[in-house]
Amino acid sequence: MSMAKSMSLLWGTGSPPCWRVMIALEEKKLQGYKRKPLSFEKGEHKSQEVLEINPRGQLPAFKHGNNILNESCAACLYLENQFKCQGNKLIPDNPAEQALMYQRMMEGLAFTDKLNSVIYYEWVVPEEERHDSAVKRNRTDLTTELKLWEDYLQKVAAGSYLAGAFPLADVIIFPNIAYAFRFGLSVGRYPKLAKYYSLLKDRPSIKASWPPHWLASPQGFDILKDL
Amino acid sequence: MSMAKSMSLLWGTGSPPCWRVMIALEEKKLQGYKRKPLSFEKGEHKSQEVLEINPRGQLPAFKHGNNILNESCAACLYLENQFKCQGNKLIPDNPAEQALMYQRMMEGLAFTDKLNSVIYYEWVVPEEERHDSAVKRNRTDLTTELKLWEDYLQKVAAGSYLAGAFPLADVIIFPNIAYAFRFGLSVGRYPKLAKYYSLLKDRPSIKASWPPHWLASPQGFDILKDL
Repeated sequence: MSMAKSMSLLWGTGSPPCWRVMIALEEKKLQGYKRKPLSFEKGEHKSQEVLEINPRGQLPAFKHGNNILNESCAACLYLENQFKCQGNKLIPDNPAEQALMYQRMMEGLAFTDKLNSVIYYEWVVPEEERHDSAVKRNRTDLTTELKLWEDYLQKVAAGSYLAGAFPLADVIIFPNIAYAFRFGLSVGRYPKLAKYYSLLKDRPSIKASWPPHWLASPQGFDILKDL
Repeated sequence: MSMAKSMSLLWGTGSPPCWRVMIALEEKKLQGYKRKPLSFEKGEHKSQEVLEINPRGQLPAFKHGNNILNESCAACLYLENQFKCQGNKLIPDNPAEQALMYQRMMEGLAFTDKLNSVIYYEWVVPEEERHDSAVKRNRTDLTTELKLWEDYLQKVAAGSYLAGAFPLADVIIFPNIAYAFRFGLSVGRYPKLAKYYSLLKDRPSIKASWPPHWLASPQGFDILKDL
Protein backbone atom coordinates (compact mmCIF):
# COMPACT_ATOMS: atom_id res chain seq x y z
CA MET A 1 0.00 0.00 0.00
CA SER A 2 2.86 2.38 0.74
CA MET A 3 3.86 2.47 -2.95
CA ALA A 4 0.46 3.94 -3.82
CA LYS A 5 1.22 6.94 -1.58
CA SER A 6 3.86 8.09 -4.07
CA MET A 7 1.33 8.03 -6.90
CA SER A 8 -0.95 10.79 -8.09
CA LEU A 9 -3.57 10.92 -10.78
CA LEU A 10 -5.29 13.89 -12.38
CA TRP A 11 -8.33 12.50 -14.14
CA GLY A 12 -11.69 13.27 -15.70
CA THR A 13 -14.80 11.23 -15.03
CA GLY A 14 -15.97 8.99 -17.87
CA SER A 15 -12.77 9.32 -19.93
CA PRO A 16 -11.78 5.80 -21.08
CA PRO A 17 -8.03 6.51 -20.84
CA CYS A 18 -8.40 7.73 -17.25
CA TRP A 19 -10.63 4.83 -16.34
CA ARG A 20 -8.07 2.33 -17.66
CA VAL A 21 -5.38 3.64 -15.34
CA MET A 22 -7.80 3.52 -12.41
CA ILE A 23 -8.78 -0.08 -13.19
CA ALA A 24 -5.12 -1.09 -13.48
CA LEU A 25 -4.34 0.55 -10.13
CA GLU A 26 -7.21 -1.39 -8.52
CA GLU A 27 -6.10 -4.66 -10.15
CA LYS A 28 -2.57 -4.17 -8.82
CA LYS A 29 -3.92 -3.38 -5.32
CA LEU A 30 -2.51 0.11 -5.48
CA GLN A 31 -5.42 1.80 -3.74
CA GLY A 32 -4.72 4.89 -1.69
CA TYR A 33 -3.02 6.95 -4.40
CA LYS A 34 -3.72 10.68 -4.50
CA ARG A 35 -6.31 11.61 -7.06
CA LYS A 36 -8.00 14.77 -8.20
CA PRO A 37 -10.93 14.94 -10.58
CA LEU A 38 -10.81 17.72 -13.15
CA SER A 39 -13.54 18.99 -15.45
CA PHE A 40 -13.17 18.70 -19.23
CA GLU A 41 -16.15 21.05 -19.62
CA LYS A 42 -14.38 23.76 -17.64
CA GLY A 43 -11.20 23.12 -19.68
CA GLU A 44 -9.25 22.10 -16.59
CA HIS A 45 -7.31 19.53 -18.66
CA LYS A 46 -5.54 22.55 -20.19
CA SER A 47 -4.62 24.00 -16.78
CA GLN A 48 -1.05 24.66 -15.71
CA GLU A 49 -1.34 21.86 -13.15
CA VAL A 50 -1.94 19.36 -15.96
CA LEU A 51 0.47 20.89 -18.47
CA GLU A 52 3.34 20.52 -16.00
CA ILE A 53 2.82 16.76 -16.06
CA ASN A 54 1.27 16.28 -19.50
CA PRO A 55 2.35 18.88 -22.07
CA ARG A 56 -0.40 17.56 -24.37
CA GLY A 57 -3.01 19.00 -22.00
CA GLN A 58 -4.80 15.67 -21.78
CA LEU A 59 -6.01 13.47 -18.96
CA PRO A 60 -4.94 11.23 -17.36
CA ALA A 61 -1.83 12.88 -15.98
CA PHE A 62 -0.25 10.23 -13.78
CA LYS A 63 2.88 10.26 -11.64
CA HIS A 64 4.64 7.55 -9.69
CA GLY A 65 7.33 9.40 -7.77
CA ASN A 66 9.08 11.34 -10.52
CA ASN A 67 8.02 8.93 -13.25
CA ILE A 68 5.36 10.32 -15.54
CA LEU A 69 2.94 8.10 -17.46
CA ASN A 70 0.14 9.92 -19.25
CA GLU A 71 -0.67 7.52 -22.07
CA SER A 72 -3.07 4.93 -20.67
CA CYS A 73 -1.40 1.90 -22.28
CA ALA A 74 2.01 3.11 -21.12
CA ALA A 75 0.75 3.53 -17.55
CA CYS A 76 -0.84 0.07 -17.55
CA LEU A 77 2.26 -1.65 -18.96
CA TYR A 78 4.44 0.14 -16.44
CA LEU A 79 2.24 -0.71 -13.46
CA GLU A 80 2.11 -4.37 -14.42
CA ASN A 81 5.88 -4.55 -14.92
CA GLN A 82 6.74 -2.66 -11.74
CA PHE A 83 4.27 -4.56 -9.56
CA LYS A 84 4.42 -8.03 -11.11
CA CYS A 85 3.91 -9.87 -7.84
CA GLN A 86 1.22 -7.63 -6.43
CA GLY A 87 -2.51 -7.97 -7.09
CA ASN A 88 -3.62 -9.65 -10.28
CA LYS A 89 -1.22 -10.69 -13.01
CA LEU A 90 -2.20 -8.72 -16.11
CA ILE A 91 0.22 -10.03 -18.76
CA PRO A 92 -0.02 -13.79 -19.40
CA ASP A 93 3.20 -15.82 -19.83
CA ASN A 94 1.79 -18.27 -22.36
CA PRO A 95 2.99 -17.04 -25.78
CA ALA A 96 -0.36 -17.51 -27.56
CA GLU A 97 -2.30 -15.72 -24.79
CA GLN A 98 0.32 -13.01 -24.59
CA ALA A 99 0.21 -12.39 -28.35
CA LEU A 100 -3.58 -12.14 -28.32
CA MET A 101 -3.51 -9.89 -25.27
CA TYR A 102 -1.03 -7.39 -26.78
CA GLN A 103 -2.83 -7.45 -30.13
CA ARG A 104 -6.29 -6.78 -28.64
CA MET A 105 -4.91 -4.21 -26.24
CA MET A 106 -3.43 -2.14 -29.05
CA GLU A 107 -6.49 -2.61 -31.25
CA GLY A 108 -8.43 -1.09 -28.36
CA LEU A 109 -6.96 2.29 -29.28
CA ALA A 110 -8.45 2.08 -32.79
CA PHE A 111 -11.78 1.28 -31.14
CA THR A 112 -11.51 4.40 -28.96
CA ASP A 113 -10.70 6.59 -31.98
CA LYS A 114 -13.72 5.33 -33.86
CA LEU A 115 -16.02 5.83 -30.89
CA ASN A 116 -14.72 9.36 -30.40
CA SER A 117 -15.17 10.19 -34.11
CA VAL A 118 -18.89 9.56 -33.75
CA ILE A 119 -19.60 10.68 -30.18
CA TYR A 120 -17.54 13.87 -30.25
CA TYR A 121 -17.96 14.82 -33.91
CA GLU A 122 -19.66 18.14 -33.18
CA TRP A 123 -17.34 18.88 -30.31
CA VAL A 124 -14.19 18.35 -32.42
CA VAL A 125 -15.15 19.44 -35.93
CA PRO A 126 -15.89 23.17 -36.44
CA GLU A 127 -19.42 23.81 -37.71
CA GLU A 128 -18.37 25.02 -41.17
CA GLU A 129 -16.35 21.82 -41.72
CA ARG A 130 -19.11 19.35 -40.89
CA HIS A 131 -20.56 17.10 -43.56
CA ASP A 132 -23.38 14.59 -43.41
CA SER A 133 -21.24 12.31 -45.57
CA ALA A 134 -18.46 12.36 -42.95
CA VAL A 135 -20.93 11.67 -40.13
CA LYS A 136 -22.31 8.76 -42.10
CA ARG A 137 -18.86 7.36 -42.88
CA ASN A 138 -17.77 7.66 -39.24
CA ARG A 139 -20.88 5.77 -38.16
CA THR A 140 -20.25 3.06 -40.76
CA ASP A 141 -16.62 2.77 -39.62
CA LEU A 142 -17.74 2.44 -36.01
CA THR A 143 -20.29 -0.21 -36.97
CA THR A 144 -17.54 -2.19 -38.73
CA GLU A 145 -15.37 -1.83 -35.64
CA LEU A 146 -18.15 -2.98 -33.31
CA LYS A 147 -18.85 -6.00 -35.48
CA LEU A 148 -15.16 -6.87 -35.41
CA TRP A 149 -15.21 -6.98 -31.60
CA GLU A 150 -18.52 -8.84 -31.59
CA ASP A 151 -16.76 -11.39 -33.80
CA TYR A 152 -13.66 -11.51 -31.59
CA LEU A 153 -15.87 -12.26 -28.58
CA GLN A 154 -17.76 -14.91 -30.54
CA LYS A 155 -14.46 -16.73 -31.04
CA VAL A 156 -13.34 -16.83 -27.42
CA ALA A 157 -14.71 -19.50 -25.11
CA ALA A 158 -18.18 -18.72 -23.82
CA GLY A 159 -18.07 -16.69 -20.67
CA SER A 160 -14.38 -15.97 -20.76
CA TYR A 161 -12.87 -12.55 -21.08
CA LEU A 162 -11.19 -11.13 -24.12
CA ALA A 163 -7.85 -12.80 -23.77
CA GLY A 164 -7.86 -14.83 -20.61
CA ALA A 165 -8.38 -14.02 -16.96
CA PHE A 166 -8.71 -10.25 -17.04
CA PRO A 167 -5.38 -9.30 -18.45
CA LEU A 168 -4.41 -5.90 -19.72
CA ALA A 169 -6.50 -6.15 -22.87
CA ASP A 170 -9.68 -6.06 -20.80
CA VAL A 171 -8.39 -3.10 -18.80
CA ILE A 172 -7.98 -1.20 -22.07
CA ILE A 173 -11.12 -2.48 -23.84
CA PHE A 174 -13.76 -2.49 -21.11
CA PRO A 175 -14.09 1.31 -20.86
CA ASN A 176 -14.68 1.47 -24.64
CA ILE A 177 -17.47 -1.06 -24.41
CA ALA A 178 -19.04 0.55 -21.36
CA TYR A 179 -18.88 3.85 -23.24
CA ALA A 180 -20.60 2.37 -26.28
CA PHE A 181 -23.52 1.12 -24.16
CA ARG A 182 -23.66 4.40 -22.22
CA PHE A 183 -24.16 6.08 -25.59
CA GLY A 184 -26.99 3.79 -26.59
CA LEU A 185 -25.50 0.73 -28.31
CA SER A 186 -28.13 -1.95 -28.93
CA VAL A 187 -27.85 -4.97 -26.61
CA GLY A 188 -29.91 -6.94 -29.14
CA ARG A 189 -27.64 -6.34 -32.09
CA TYR A 190 -24.39 -6.78 -30.14
CA PRO A 191 -25.15 -9.67 -27.79
CA LYS A 192 -21.53 -10.73 -27.26
CA LEU A 193 -20.46 -7.20 -26.39
CA ALA A 194 -23.46 -6.97 -24.06
CA LYS A 195 -22.51 -10.23 -22.36
CA TYR A 196 -18.91 -9.11 -21.98
CA TYR A 197 -20.15 -5.84 -20.50
CA SER A 198 -22.43 -7.55 -18.00
CA LEU A 199 -19.74 -10.09 -17.03
CA LEU A 200 -17.21 -7.40 -16.24
CA LYS A 201 -19.22 -4.49 -14.90
CA ASP A 202 -19.41 -5.88 -11.37
CA ARG A 203 -15.77 -6.85 -11.14
CA PRO A 204 -14.41 -5.09 -8.02
CA SER A 205 -11.70 -3.11 -9.86
CA ILE A 206 -14.28 -1.81 -12.32
CA LYS A 207 -16.97 -1.12 -9.75
CA ALA A 208 -14.52 0.77 -7.57
CA SER A 209 -13.55 3.01 -10.47
CA TRP A 210 -16.99 3.44 -12.09
CA PRO A 211 -17.41 7.00 -13.46
CA PRO A 212 -19.07 8.97 -10.64
CA HIS A 213 -21.19 11.05 -12.99
CA TRP A 214 -22.60 7.87 -14.55
CA LEU A 215 -23.70 6.82 -11.06
CA ALA A 216 -25.19 10.26 -10.49
CA SER A 217 -27.12 10.15 -13.77
CA PRO A 218 -27.54 6.53 -14.86
CA GLN A 219 -29.53 7.59 -17.92
CA GLY A 220 -27.24 7.56 -20.94
CA PHE A 221 -27.59 8.87 -24.48
CA ASP A 222 -28.90 7.43 -27.71
CA ILE A 223 -26.29 8.55 -30.26
CA LEU A 224 -25.37 4.94 -31.08
CA LYS A 225 -28.81 3.33 -30.86
CA ASP A 226 -29.20 2.78 -34.62
CA LEU A 227 -25.76 1.25 -35.25
CA MET B 1 17.75 -18.18 -36.09
CA SER B 2 15.40 -21.16 -36.29
CA MET B 3 12.62 -19.24 -34.52
CA ALA B 4 12.58 -16.72 -37.36
CA LYS B 5 11.61 -19.48 -39.80
CA SER B 6 8.20 -19.74 -38.16
CA MET B 7 7.60 -16.02 -38.69
CA SER B 8 6.05 -14.30 -41.66
CA LEU B 9 5.45 -10.66 -42.44
CA LEU B 10 3.24 -9.06 -45.05
CA TRP B 11 4.39 -5.46 -45.34
CA GLY B 12 4.39 -2.29 -47.38
CA THR B 13 7.50 -0.26 -48.07
CA GLY B 14 7.72 3.05 -46.21
CA SER B 15 4.87 2.34 -43.81
CA PRO B 16 6.07 3.30 -40.31
CA PRO B 17 4.12 0.49 -38.59
CA CYS B 18 5.70 -2.11 -40.93
CA TRP B 19 9.12 -0.60 -40.51
CA ARG B 20 8.84 -0.79 -36.71
CA VAL B 21 8.23 -4.53 -36.78
CA MET B 22 11.16 -5.02 -39.18
CA ILE B 23 13.50 -2.99 -36.95
CA ALA B 24 12.40 -4.96 -33.89
CA LEU B 25 13.03 -8.25 -35.71
CA GLU B 26 16.54 -7.07 -36.63
CA GLU B 27 17.23 -5.89 -33.07
CA LYS B 28 16.18 -9.29 -31.70
CA LYS B 29 18.38 -11.07 -34.27
CA LEU B 30 15.37 -12.69 -35.88
CA GLN B 31 16.59 -12.40 -39.44
CA GLY B 32 15.49 -15.02 -41.92
CA TYR B 33 11.73 -14.67 -41.44
CA LYS B 34 9.51 -14.98 -44.50
CA ARG B 35 8.45 -11.66 -45.87
CA LYS B 36 6.40 -10.45 -48.76
CA PRO B 37 6.09 -6.86 -49.88
CA LEU B 38 2.62 -5.70 -50.91
CA SER B 39 1.56 -2.55 -52.71
CA PHE B 40 -0.72 -0.04 -51.00
CA GLU B 41 -1.23 1.67 -54.37
CA LYS B 42 -2.57 -1.53 -55.88
CA GLY B 43 -4.78 -2.03 -52.81
CA GLU B 44 -3.03 -5.28 -51.91
CA HIS B 45 -3.46 -4.49 -48.19
CA LYS B 46 -7.15 -5.26 -48.75
CA SER B 47 -6.44 -8.64 -50.38
CA GLN B 48 -7.77 -11.92 -49.01
CA GLU B 49 -4.23 -12.92 -48.08
CA VAL B 50 -4.02 -9.95 -45.71
CA LEU B 51 -7.62 -10.10 -44.47
CA GLU B 52 -7.10 -13.67 -43.28
CA ILE B 53 -4.42 -12.42 -40.91
CA ASN B 54 -5.55 -8.85 -40.35
CA PRO B 55 -9.31 -8.32 -40.67
CA ARG B 56 -8.65 -4.56 -40.64
CA GLY B 57 -7.03 -4.85 -44.05
CA GLN B 58 -3.90 -3.07 -42.85
CA LEU B 59 -0.20 -3.76 -42.97
CA PRO B 60 1.80 -5.12 -41.27
CA ALA B 61 0.19 -8.55 -41.01
CA PHE B 62 2.61 -10.55 -38.89
CA LYS B 63 2.53 -14.15 -37.73
CA HIS B 64 4.77 -16.10 -35.38
CA GLY B 65 3.56 -19.68 -35.70
CA ASN B 66 -0.18 -19.30 -35.09
CA ASN B 67 0.21 -16.11 -33.08
CA ILE B 68 -0.96 -13.03 -34.93
CA LEU B 69 0.39 -9.55 -34.18
CA ASN B 70 -0.70 -6.83 -36.57
CA GLU B 71 -0.49 -3.74 -34.39
CA SER B 72 3.12 -2.56 -34.49
CA CYS B 73 3.42 -1.82 -30.77
CA ALA B 74 1.85 -5.18 -29.94
CA ALA B 75 4.31 -7.00 -32.22
CA CYS B 76 7.29 -5.16 -30.72
CA LEU B 77 6.20 -5.80 -27.12
CA TYR B 78 5.63 -9.46 -27.91
CA LEU B 79 8.97 -9.95 -29.68
CA GLU B 80 10.84 -8.34 -26.80
CA ASN B 81 9.03 -10.43 -24.22
CA GLN B 82 9.36 -13.72 -26.11
CA PHE B 83 13.03 -13.20 -27.00
CA LYS B 84 14.29 -11.41 -23.91
CA CYS B 85 17.74 -12.98 -23.99
CA GLN B 86 18.31 -12.73 -27.73
CA GLY B 87 19.71 -9.70 -29.53
CA ASN B 88 19.36 -6.30 -27.93
CA LYS B 89 17.34 -5.71 -24.80
CA LEU B 90 14.56 -3.28 -25.75
CA ILE B 91 12.76 -2.70 -22.44
CA PRO B 92 14.96 -1.24 -19.68
CA ASP B 93 14.64 -2.59 -16.12
CA ASN B 94 15.33 0.69 -14.39
CA PRO B 95 11.90 2.07 -13.37
CA ALA B 96 12.58 5.66 -14.48
CA GLU B 97 13.93 4.57 -17.87
CA GLN B 98 11.12 2.08 -18.29
CA ALA B 99 8.47 4.70 -17.52
CA LEU B 100 9.97 7.14 -20.03
CA MET B 101 10.31 4.40 -22.63
CA TYR B 102 6.67 3.27 -22.38
CA GLN B 103 5.43 6.86 -22.30
CA ARG B 104 7.39 7.94 -25.40
CA MET B 105 6.58 4.72 -27.20
CA MET B 106 2.84 5.27 -26.83
CA GLU B 107 3.13 8.97 -27.62
CA GLY B 108 4.72 7.84 -30.87
CA LEU B 109 1.28 6.75 -32.08
CA ALA B 110 -0.09 10.30 -31.65
CA PHE B 111 2.92 11.53 -33.66
CA THR B 112 2.07 9.06 -36.47
CA ASP B 113 -1.58 10.18 -36.51
CA LYS B 114 -0.59 13.82 -36.82
CA LEU B 115 1.90 13.10 -39.61
CA ASN B 116 -0.72 11.10 -41.50
CA SER B 117 -3.33 13.84 -41.11
CA VAL B 118 -1.07 16.19 -43.05
CA ILE B 119 0.67 13.86 -45.51
CA TYR B 120 -2.40 11.82 -46.49
CA TYR B 121 -5.08 14.51 -46.21
CA GLU B 122 -6.09 14.36 -49.85
CA TRP B 123 -5.82 10.59 -49.92
CA VAL B 124 -8.12 10.15 -46.93
CA VAL B 125 -10.59 13.05 -47.11
CA PRO B 126 -13.05 13.05 -50.05
CA GLU B 127 -12.72 16.15 -52.21
CA GLU B 128 -16.09 17.63 -51.28
CA GLU B 129 -15.20 17.43 -47.57
CA ARG B 130 -11.85 19.20 -47.76
CA HIS B 131 -11.37 22.58 -46.12
CA ASP B 132 -8.39 24.92 -46.11
CA SER B 133 -9.15 25.58 -42.44
CA ALA B 134 -8.77 21.84 -41.69
CA VAL B 135 -5.51 21.62 -43.64
CA LYS B 136 -4.19 24.61 -41.73
CA ARG B 137 -5.24 23.19 -38.36
CA ASN B 138 -3.69 19.80 -39.14
CA ARG B 139 -0.41 21.53 -40.04
CA THR B 140 -0.51 23.58 -36.85
CA ASP B 141 -1.19 20.44 -34.82
CA LEU B 142 1.73 18.67 -36.48
CA THR B 143 4.01 21.64 -35.83
CA THR B 144 3.03 21.53 -32.15
CA GLU B 145 3.75 17.80 -32.13
CA LEU B 146 7.15 18.23 -33.79
CA LYS B 147 8.11 20.96 -31.32
CA LEU B 148 7.13 18.66 -28.46
CA TRP B 149 9.56 15.99 -29.72
CA GLU B 150 12.24 18.60 -30.41
CA ASP B 151 11.81 19.61 -26.77
CA TYR B 152 11.90 15.99 -25.54
CA LEU B 153 15.20 15.47 -27.36
CA GLN B 154 16.55 18.72 -25.97
CA LYS B 155 16.01 17.36 -22.48
CA VAL B 156 17.82 14.04 -22.91
CA ALA B 157 21.59 13.94 -22.58
CA ALA B 158 23.37 15.12 -25.72
CA GLY B 159 23.90 12.34 -28.20
CA SER B 160 21.78 9.79 -26.41
CA TYR B 161 18.70 8.26 -27.84
CA LEU B 162 15.16 8.97 -26.79
CA ALA B 163 15.03 6.88 -23.69
CA GLY B 164 18.34 5.09 -23.33
CA ALA B 165 20.25 2.65 -25.49
CA PHE B 166 17.84 2.07 -28.37
CA PRO B 167 14.93 0.64 -26.50
CA LEU B 168 11.47 0.12 -27.91
CA ALA B 169 10.61 3.81 -27.93
CA ASP B 170 13.18 4.41 -30.65
CA VAL B 171 11.88 1.45 -32.65
CA ILE B 172 8.46 3.09 -32.65
CA ILE B 173 9.58 6.71 -33.06
CA PHE B 174 12.40 6.53 -35.58
CA PRO B 175 10.18 5.69 -38.59
CA ASN B 176 8.02 8.75 -37.77
CA ILE B 177 11.03 11.00 -37.76
CA ALA B 178 12.52 9.50 -40.92
CA TYR B 179 9.13 9.99 -42.52
CA ALA B 180 8.98 13.63 -41.49
CA PHE B 181 12.37 14.33 -43.10
CA ARG B 182 11.46 12.29 -46.17
CA PHE B 183 8.49 14.65 -46.56
CA GLY B 184 10.63 17.76 -46.31
CA LEU B 185 10.94 18.68 -42.62
CA SER B 186 13.48 21.49 -42.11
CA VAL B 187 16.76 20.34 -40.55
CA GLY B 188 17.40 23.95 -39.55
CA ARG B 189 14.22 24.44 -37.60
CA TYR B 190 14.29 20.99 -35.97
CA PRO B 191 17.98 20.48 -35.16
CA LYS B 192 17.44 17.94 -32.37
CA LEU B 193 15.17 15.80 -34.53
CA ALA B 194 17.75 16.07 -37.33
CA LYS B 195 20.52 14.99 -34.98
CA TYR B 196 18.48 12.08 -33.71
CA TYR B 197 17.75 11.08 -37.30
CA SER B 198 21.40 11.18 -38.33
CA LEU B 199 22.51 9.30 -35.20
CA LEU B 200 20.12 6.43 -35.84
CA LYS B 201 19.89 6.15 -39.60
CA ASP B 202 23.06 4.07 -39.92
CA ARG B 203 22.25 1.73 -37.08
CA PRO B 204 22.41 -1.81 -38.55
CA SER B 205 18.81 -2.74 -37.69
CA ILE B 206 17.55 0.43 -39.36
CA LYS B 207 19.84 0.24 -42.36
CA ALA B 208 18.87 -3.39 -42.96
CA SER B 209 15.18 -2.47 -42.98
CA TRP B 210 15.41 0.86 -44.85
CA PRO B 211 12.39 1.30 -47.19
CA PRO B 212 13.54 -0.07 -50.55
CA HIS B 213 11.65 2.54 -52.56
CA TRP B 214 13.40 5.30 -50.60
CA LEU B 215 16.71 3.80 -51.72
CA ALA B 216 15.45 3.57 -55.28
CA SER B 217 14.32 7.21 -55.28
CA PRO B 218 16.23 9.10 -52.59
CA GLN B 219 14.51 12.36 -53.52
CA GLY B 220 11.70 13.03 -51.06
CA PHE B 221 8.81 15.48 -51.00
CA ASP B 222 8.36 18.99 -49.68
CA ILE B 223 4.94 18.83 -48.03
CA LEU B 224 6.43 19.62 -44.62
CA LYS B 225 9.11 22.11 -45.63
CA ASP B 226 7.34 25.18 -44.21
CA LEU B 227 6.47 23.72 -40.82
